Amino acid sequence: MPKLDLAAIPQTNATGYPAPHDAAVEGRWYRRLAPACGRTRIGASHCTLLPGAFSSHRHWHREEDELVVMLEGQAILIDDTGETPVGPGDVLAFPAGEANGHHLHNRTDDPCVFVAIRAGDAAADSGVYPDIDMVFDAAGYARKDGTRYDARRTP
Amino acid sequence: MPKLDLAAIPQTNATGYPAPHDAAVEGRWYRRLAPACGRTRIGASHCTLLPGAFSSHRHWHREEDELVVMLEGQAILIDDTGETPVGPGDVLAFPAGEANGHHLHNRTDDPCVFVAIRAGDAAADSGVYPDIDMVFDAAGYARKDGTRYDARRTP
Repeated sequence: MPKLDLAAIPQTNATGYPAPHDAAVEGRWYRRLAPACGRTRIGASHCTLLPGAFSSHRHWHREEDELVVMLEGQAILIDDTGETPVGPGDVLAFPAGEANGHHLHNRTDDPCVFVAIRAGDAAADSGVYPDIDMVFDAAGYARKDGTRYDARRTP
Repeated sequence: MPKLDLAAIPQTNATGYPAPHDAAVEGRWYRRLAPACGRTRIGASHCTLLPGAFSSHRHWHREEDELVVMLEGQAILIDDTGETPVGPGDVLAFPAGEANGHHLHNRTDDPCVFVAIRAGDAAADSGVYPDIDMVFDAAGYARKDGTRYDARRTP
């Protein structure tokens, strides 16, 4: 069925971030859309940020493009250029390889909802969290000196 | 700038469909988002269907996944399973290779707005329009007997 039954897709706030980096995304609840519809070329999540939650730590991808479509509520986009309010109907684009760490922060008292889409070579992907001592690759998370965290990326 | 300035991106109702198949999409106005933000792995369009317009002829892709995020207004999704009303916040997924011809029809008196996202091997892509005498590949359009139409796909 092309129209996804979002309510029937399990919602989780699981994260592979190692402590203490996991706390920032405790209020990020998401549904992974790919398993529900068999897609392999697009990765998509339907995300709700509860008040105070971040979408991730600021990060960028070397091998995956990201696109965000805002649906409900308000958030602040934080990247190297500063802070930008975003809301319903806004489209945010983060090309692979552009070293501009970005995330969304819900500073309101209401949830904000968006769809986050990724495409590219996930197996070859890696990236950087500029604000914390963490990088990622397909296998999981490491410190910037290369030592691995004992945590895997969420599937 | 990750937040796209949609109003600054040129809007067009151009189509590569050969006559008489072009009439159905005359009221489809879209902005191609990739050129504005340099993305190569995701193809995305911000589309407005005026009253009466179709998003395309019913079609499906062999090598590209499609995802649609509805933003404003109401439309009818028409596919092999029948007719399904869709509106703001709905997410529609069309996996590559699934031979389920689909399109959207705006039967209301107001515009409807959505973001359409594609990813996959565009150069190897091809597909079928089940309701009309037309198929497509990367080079353009042909009849089902293989003779080419004198029309190219829009870039």
